[in-house]
Amino acid sequence: MLPPTRIGEITMTDNTTRAAELLKTHRASIDRLDAILIYTLGERFAHTKAVGQLKANHDLPASDPDREAKQITRLKSLAESADLDTAFAEKFLNFIIQEVIKNHKTYQD
Amino acid sequence: MLPPTRIGEITMTDNTTRAAELLKTHRASIDRLDAILIYTLGERFAHTKAVGQLKANHDLPASDPDREAKQITRLKSLAESADLDTAFAEKFLNFIIQEVIKNHKTYQD
Repeated sequence: MLPPTRIGEITMTDNTTRAAELLKTHRASIDRLDAILIYTLGERFAHTKAVGQLKANHDLPASDPDREAKQITRLKSLAESADLDTAFAEKFLNFIIQEVIKNHKTYQD
Repeated sequence: MLPPTRIGEITMTDNTTRAAELLKTHRASIDRLDAILIYTLGERFAHTKAVGQLKANHDLPASDPDREAKQITRLKSLAESADLDTAFAEKFLNFIIQEVIKNHKTYQD
């Protein structure tokens, strides 16, 4: 049987190694999810670019408060199902919409 | 043959109808992409929550500037491949990281 201090050291090292391995696994998942997010955002902006050009060609306003209100309600409900903080989901959509409106304005200028 | 003004009206209506249909199609795609984004963010925060708890249990700092710098470089490269504005991709990752750090700090308190 090993003396208590030696056991303590092994346990410590084991825990630290296990934590480091777990951290690595989570980070690998996060990196893959980030790739999904970036490509999905790329696709989303391709669509909003087309919408912006349609709006500019038909003299429609760059922002659409009715549509935005509906999107926020829908995303908060999706966030609940996805176990994502609904306040964060709203902040996230507003962050994206600000970028979209900025882009729409450049088409209209 | 219809008089020119009548043709003009039809063309106008056709264009407007086509634009409205296109707008609807793009918005349906945007709504589907938003569902992907929300669920992917839900999954991402599940992993960062686990990372935060690991860090709190092992007294590791909430933020990790080295890891963040690597993530930003990687995401900017992914953004280029996805035809997404790289400055926006960086702003987006910082937006997410701020939320993650805020969450990590609550585990450590």
